[in-house]
Amino acid sequence: MDLTASLGTDTAHLRETCIEARTAWRGSFLDVRSDRVALPDGSETNREYIVHPGAVMIVPLLGEDRVIIERQWRYPMGRAMLEFPAGKLEPGEPVLDCAVRELTEETGYRAAEWARAGILHNAIGYSDEGIEIWFARGLAPGQRRLDAGEFLDVFEAGVDELDEAARSGEITDAKTLIGLLWLANWRSGRWPLKWVGAAPTS
Amino acid sequence: MDLTASLGTDTAHLRETCIEARTAWRGSFLDVRSDRVALPDGSETNREYIVHPGAVMIVPLLGEDRVIIERQWRYPMGRAMLEFPAGKLEPGEPVLDCAVRELTEETGYRAAEWARAGILHNAIGYSDEGIEIWFARGLAPGQRRLDAGEFLDVFEAGVDELDEAARSGEITDAKTLIGLLWLANWRSGRWPLKWVGAAPTS
Repeated sequence: MDLTASLGTDTAHLRETCIEARTAWRGSFLDVRSDRVALPDGSETNREYIVHPGAVMIVPLLGEDRVIIERQWRYPMGRAMLEFPAGKLEPGEPVLDCAVRELTEETGYRAAEWARAGILHNAIGYSDEGIEIWFARGLAPGQRRLDAGEFLDVFEAGVDELDEAARSGEITDAKTLIGLLWLANWRSGRWPLKWVGAAPTS
Repeated sequence: MDLTASLGTDTAHLRETCIEARTAWRGSFLDVRSDRVALPDGSETNREYIVHPGAVMIVPLLGEDRVIIERQWRYPMGRAMLEFPAGKLEPGEPVLDCAVRELTEETGYRAAEWARAGILHNAIGYSDEGIEIWFARGLAPGQRRLDAGEFLDVFEAGVDELDEAARSGEITDAKTLIGLLWLANWRSGRWPLKWVGAAPTS
């Protein structure tokens, strides 16, 4: 069977269903579950995973061939990583509001226009996290307002420089690599974006 | 400061250091930590994260413009997802051995040649997981041997078809999108791969 034919087919033969939902551990950030689950053949197993509020990543454009990028310490990795700006959704927060907020908080920039590229799911084996991918352009610099306990560097970078950093392994952050995938396809005209004006904010 | 200048600079002003390492919860798969951490300004916080054994993804090539792809139920997502074959490293397992094993177990294929593209880090805010990215070519079909409790569909797909599925949002799995980034850059000659013969396996 090929892909196009497959997309229309039923997935019932793959489906796993919850028998018992169980909270395993709850921290101030991580919400860990360990559900008892029925597999397609009727056997049972446990599925351990994180429930996540979702996040937004911003690809901030300075013209068509330069962007804003950050460097931030990532404790689980034990080092600083190069990344596009990103942040978690607050409860009930509209996605674009979150994107506008995170871009300003972390970099100081405000954008005249925004475009939604898509969504990515970064750890489908053990997290329900989705990261919305938004592009921002028409950037006006301003004062950043980092959260308490937040420390990060902000840089300008050429897209060619970032592509080379991805090839060489300097950039390994998944969301950022997918930002570069969207950048390459948007710049070549293959994956067009639909721009909207930024809503006025107080 | 621009990116190239920044890569050589010190990151001590961003560094977070462990004060006390603490296990929060241990399941059969997830190993959850909640460390007490010192921030760069000397203040303290908690960092909650998963310790992960690491994984391998395989981009299995049928010629230059067709690949093998899977559809698998992902319980945290509540649905089946399109993905390149992938699997977790077993303790002490060499990465290429894991790639050869997972490709055969999940799809039945054995590859004549392999090439390492790079590594991606998919959840740097709350996991140390790294996914090695390997390409496989010279595929010979055979019998797959799924693990107990593993159910998945295997398809052939054109690279153009997959690119369109990524653009339209049919493919949202991060590792798979990054496989498509590598595929596009390899096919265009921008990101060359160095191929090695597969080691003979018993």
